[in-house]
This record gives sequence, structure tokens and C-alpha cells, in this order.
Amino acid sequence: MIKVNDNFCKLPGSYLFSEVARRVGAYSEAHPEAKIIRMGIGDVTLPLCPSAIAAMHAAIDELTRRDTFHGYGPETGYDFLREAIAKNDYGLRGVSIELDEIFINDGAKSDTGNIGDILSHDCRIAVTDPVYPVYVDTNVMAGRAGNLEKSGCWSNIIYLPCSIENGFVPSLPQEHPDAIYLCYPNNPTGTSLSRKELTKWVEYAITNNVLLLFDSAYEAYITDGDTPHSIYEIPGAKKVAIEFRSYSKTAGFTGVRCGYTVVPKELEGRDRDGNVIGLNGLWRRRQTTKFNGASYISQRGAAALYSDSGKKEVAENIKYYMDNAKMILNSVMGLGLQAVGGVNAPYVWVKTPDGMSSWEFFDLLLEKFQIVGTPGVGFGPSGEGYFRFSAFSTREATMQAMNRIKNI
Amino acid sequence: MIKVNDNFCKLPGSYLFSEVARRVGAYSEAHPEAKIIRMGIGDVTLPLCPSAIAAMHAAIDELTRRDTFHGYGPETGYDFLREAIAKNDYGLRGVSIELDEIFINDGAKSDTGNIGDILSHDCRIAVTDPVYPVYVDTNVMAGRAGNLEKSGCWSNIIYLPCSIENGFVPSLPQEHPDAIYLCYPNNPTGTSLSRKELTKWVEYAITNNVLLLFDSAYEAYITDGDTPHSIYEIPGAKKVAIEFRSYSKTAGFTGVRCGYTVVPKELEGRDRDGNVIGLNGLWRRRQTTKFNGASYISQRGAAALYSDSGKKEVAENIKYYMDNAKMILNSVMGLGLQAVGGVNAPYVWVKTPDGMSSWEFFDLLLEKFQIVGTPGVGFGPSGEGYFRFSAFSTREATMQAMNRIKNI
Repeated sequence: MIKVNDNFCKLPGSYLFSEVARRVGAYSEAHPEAKIIRMGIGDVTLPLCPSAIAAMHAAIDELTRRDTFHGYGPETGYDFLREAIAKNDYGLRGVSIELDEIFINDGAKSDTGNIGDILSHDCRIAVTDPVYPVYVDTNVMAGRAGNLEKSGCWSNIIYLPCSIENGFVPSLPQEHPDAIYLCYPNNPTGTSLSRKELTKWVEYAITNNVLLLFDSAYEAYITDGDTPHSIYEIPGAKKVAIEFRSYSKTAGFTGVRCGYTVVPKELEGRDRDGNVIGLNGLWRRRQTTKFNGASYISQRGAAALYSDSGKKEVAENIKYYMDNAKMILNSVMGLGLQAVGGVNAPYVWVKTPDGMSSWEFFDLLLEKFQIVGTPGVGFGPSGEGYFRFSAFSTREATMQAMNRIKNI
Repeated sequence: MIKVNDNFCKLPGSYLFSEVARRVGAYSEAHPEAKIIRMGIGDVTLPLCPSAIAAMHAAIDELTRRDTFHGYGPETGYDFLREAIAKNDYGLRGVSIELDEIFINDGAKSDTGNIGDILSHDCRIAVTDPVYPVYVDTNVMAGRAGNLEKSGCWSNIIYLPCSIENGFVPSLPQEHPDAIYLCYPNNPTGTSLSRKELTKWVEYAITNNVLLLFDSAYEAYITDGDTPHSIYEIPGAKKVAIEFRSYSKTAGFTGVRCGYTVVPKELEGRDRDGNVIGLNGLWRRRQTTKFNGASYISQRGAAALYSDSGKKEVAENIKYYMDNAKMILNSVMGLGLQAVGGVNAPYVWVKTPDGMSSWEFFDLLLEKFQIVGTPGVGFGPSGEGYFRFSAFSTREATMQAMNRIKNI
């Protein structure tokens, strides 16, 4: 009999961004003349930087000639890219990462989703709340989440609320999980963790033997000096943390598809009999068995981002988005709304006024101002009463949107 | 505690192609002057065809301009590619496949590996033997395989032997599995299933409610008229079969990364309570949650293969490899060896002489003739005493290799 994975059936039918698209579609149809400004989904709008473009054209040209053709690459990525990562993303920050600790992938969504493959089915998971839905949904699929309760929480997941009340700094868990997802700078709140705060998490993880799944897809947006770019800047983190990085937001690679995961060789787990097992080897086996490497063209494009010109171009694009973020933050605070983010991340997280629900505020912005954002409740129960603005629109659209809501 | 997935620990340490690489490396080091000819791993050697190259350059140029930039694409693929697939790979063969039954991916290895995500953990799996190792290894990881026995078989997997004795046509299983992996044209044996044989499997699957996981990565190599290119050419197959396709071998995309999976909407499974669940929806949920789409550039390259010029160029490349295959088949049969394949697939599967083991024959070819192939036993217990030659080398290397073994 064709027996399906029952856990999939527990997932609620509608994904956040589908429901957003549905409401926007319905509004558009009823108001075909409306000029809608999209500040919802976190996709970029600036074109790729010239260095990446040139490198990818050159890579394609290599594929036209028999003597320079590249077929299957290493499943874990080419050394030319891993060397650039080890040197620039880690070495320059005083962190030593070996090449075989770096696994190139087709984007952070794949690896943050697939990482559960190497963990036991009865691992207890903790997430900050609100949170990127992929962490929760993939654990539902794997049978680790328990059941969805009326509160919007899954019975077997430990939630670590982040709200105005605690300054969006999650408290250490009361019950000990086996693994904790941390995303900093944070999606969706746009907040970051200081060195002192992140040190607290690493020490907690070491003391309690907990795995930290650290998603730093937005590290390139950090502007202050006190926020670590990598969890491995914290002493001892290699013993407890896997780090996920992406070129999607750093360099507009959302359509090109390239990112990477670091699994240190010091990071060890236990099997059922208590034997010590290195996670680096497990992840290598997972990737060599279920993945055939990222596109050669995309890897060449990613490597070019580490050239002098590439770094300069990436920095310019990030400044562009962060100027948008600053404008959004100033605008909404000027309106008297409470807001965070926008300093070390391209998201601004706003408390809805007058106790409105996230979806009520969504509908208000869409119907009165033709602006689309993301309802906070879509990121978890503690997101209710909040709203996310993305800074990835164009300057013009961002200015126009802020102009529209001036008189909210 | 960091609890790992114990099932990974059951996998034997050394992967087939790593051991091949190790032995070749050791030989090379001892004989630096040796000119080794590689006919082992199934990677292509011809450069990409001009139509794909042009389309990928154009795609990159689109990414340089704000008005034509593409960020996140649909997780399940762009319609321009899905339309080309529906029309050319299916419509022209009289098979109707809807666009939302097609899921574009980054290569068949990912999806043949990940497909288990949507199946129950207690699904009983059957494989033909010898077999592409990914099917078995991913089920070991998922805990479906049981334990590795001395015979080289996993205790909970049903093996369907294919050997000279049965003309490499597997018999229907004695015990009913829940899912069967079929790869035709076959890797590693190079054999194919006639329409009549494949019909027998589809009818068996319908009668016994069994899922067929049909890998047709090599369908472009079919030269005879009686071998179906798609399992959906067989009446009723949409009720029981998922089909995996790849551009890796069709068009040399091993480094570009693009393929697709078809999950028909008619295909249904059951949950634990006996409710009917559509597999198309489950796979859509899996892919939208754990995958962010194949590279835009790769998808544009793949779509160009369906243009008139693309089809012509692909056909020329395939003819080149199949002429190699014919040469290999004729040579080894001329030596009095028993061999199959090489007609509808780029692999020739040879019975080793004088009862030699697969690895003995491997060592003989390497040491006496400096030729590298793949020991059949690496593909499963029934591969013992066989050896795989790949036709993906250059013409010159293939001729030279066949010349060397003339006096074996």
C-alpha cells in the first residue's frame, strides 16, 4: 500500500505568503487601477553586481570547450569558493574554518530544511517566536513537532517569545531542548544579538549539550560593531553550532541559488548507545548521497563576490537597501508607532496601532494605502499584533509608500 | 543532548566511487607515467550545446538590468520550462501531463533521494539488483532498510535480482512492497524494459497498490522503437508512478544542475487512518518548504534544449556517446565476453571472465591496461562478477581503451 508520511497532513493548508498573494490578488482584481507597492516577501530588486555577472559569463564560456568543460563538481562545493569563504568570511574575522567544514549548497532554505535528516527523530526542538516558518514546518514533516494547538503552537516545540516586553531578546529555555534554531540578524523582527547575548547562548549550549542551528543569512546587513557576524566569533561555538549562510540577500542571488553551511569537525553528537558521532561526517554523507553540488556557474558567481570589485559592489547594494530600511524605520516611528529592526537587518518590525491584529493591519494598509507587507502572526503566535516591512523594494517605491502612510 | 540519526551509522564507510578513486590514486602515484583512461564514473565529456550556452548568456544578461531581473522563481519551476516539457517530452508521445504535475529541480539525484520525505517510515521498499546506490542509501538513512547482512543485502529491502540467468529482466516481487524503484534504461546494466515488460509492472502496481519510483534519466539514449520513453506511455501508470528525469546525461548538465520530477494528480496514497491523500500535494508542500527552485540560468538553458536547434544538437551528442557504446559492446563481445547494454543506454555491462570478482577484474584492467571502470558489486550483491563500462569518454579515449584490451 502507498503509505504516506502522515506528518505532512498535520500542516495547516495555507502558507503565509500564499494567503498574502490571495488577498492581494483579490484586491487587484476589484481595483485594477490601484498601484500596489510590495513590501512583503523578502525578495531583492537590484540587479546582480557586475563582478558576479562577468564571472558567470566566463563560467559558461568554459562549458563551451571540451578542454575547459566542467561536469560533476564536488558535492560539497569547489575549493575556489570554499577558499574564498574560509579567508574572507572567517579568516578576516579571526575565525579559522577548514575547507572540509564548508558545504556549498543551492541556498540556505535547502540546508535549514534538510539539516533535520542527520538528527534523531525524537530530538526536541526550540525556536524563537516569531520565526522563519521553514524551521517549524520541516520539523512538523519529520514528526518532531507534536500537534498544532489552538494557541498556534506545536505541542512538542519549545517556543522562546520575542516581543516588545523583553526587547526582542529571547530568554534561555526553561526545559532543555536538544536543538535550537537561532536566526540573527533576525528574520522577521530585524533585531540582532549583541556579542554578550550570543555568548550567553553558546555557553548555555555547551553546558547543556544543545545543538545551535545558527542562520546568519542576513549577516552582511550588520552595521554596528557589537554584533557578531558569525557565531564562531564566540569561543567554544564550534563545539555546538552549525552556521547557515546565503548569497541570496547578500548579493541578490535569490534566482541564482548559492549559499553554504559550516559544520565544524569539533561538533559531536551521540547515537542511541551513547557513542560519540561527528556531525561533519554525517552531513557530508547526507550531501554526497542526496545532492550533486550547486551549479558551477552559480559557484563562480559567488566566488567573484569576494574580489575587491565584488566586495565594493555588494557593499553599495546593501547600503541602498539599508537606506530604505532607515527611511521605513524613521517614517513609522515618526507616526508614533513602536518599531525595531532596520539597523542590522533589512526588515522593520512594527507594533500595530490600537491593538489591531496583524491581518487587520494588513488589510488596512492594502485597502487604504495599497501597500503590501507581511502580517507578523504568519511567523508564529508571538508575531500577532506585529507587521513586517521589507527594505528590498526600490528607493522610489519605498519613498512613495512612506509618503502614502504619512497621514495614517 | 545532540541526538543524531542512528541510521546513518549503519551505512558502510566507503562509497563505491571513493574506493575507485582511492585505488586509481594509489596506482597513479606508483606509476606516474601511466596514461589512465577513465571509463568509470558516469560523467559526460562533451561541452554544452550552443543553444543552451546562448540561452544561459541571455539569462545572465537579464539579471544585469532592473527591469528584467529575476529573483525568487516559483519553487516548482518556471512555466516556460514546464510548458516545453509537457509539450515535447509528453505531448509528442501522446501523454497528457499538466504543468502543475511537473516539478523542476536541481537534478534527479536530489529528488530520487528526497522523495522518501513524503512516504511513511514503515514503507517497505524494493529495488532491482544491481542498482543506483542512492535509492538504497537514502532508505537506510530514513530507517527503512533494516540491517546490513553478510550477503550485502539490507534485511528489510526486497531485492529483485537482474543477471544473465534472467536476461536482466527482474521478476515481480514475491512479497508485496509498498514502493519499487525502477530505473530504465538501467544504470548500471544498460538494459531496458520493453513496452510489454513495463506494462506488466504497471499492472502489478495497480493491482497491489504499489508506488513505482521510475527513474528515466537515460531515456534520451533509447534507440529502438519498442522501449517506452516514459512510464506514462503505459495505460494507468499515472495512478501509481512518479517519474524522474534529468538533463545531466541528456544534455551534459552534470555541472549546470537541472532536472524534473512528475507527480501525477491521479496518484494517491493512504495515511494511517486510511484516508486518501494525493501525492502531488504532498510533494508540492515538500518542495515549497525545503527548496527554493532551480537556478533561473539553468532553467533557461534547459528550455533551450527543446528548440529546433537544441534538439538537433542534443541528438548529435547522444549519437556520439552511443557510437562509443557500440564500439565498447562490439569490442568486449569480440573478446568472447558476455555483455549487455549499449543499445538504449550509454553503459555496457560485462560478465567478468573466468569467475573473477568485480574488484579482481577492476584491478586487472587498471594494472595491465590502465583502464578504469566500475566494479559491478558496488551496485549491489547481484552485481558481483560484473563490470560497468561508461560510454561518456571521448571517442579517442574509448578507441584507445578498446585497442589496449584487444589481447586480454
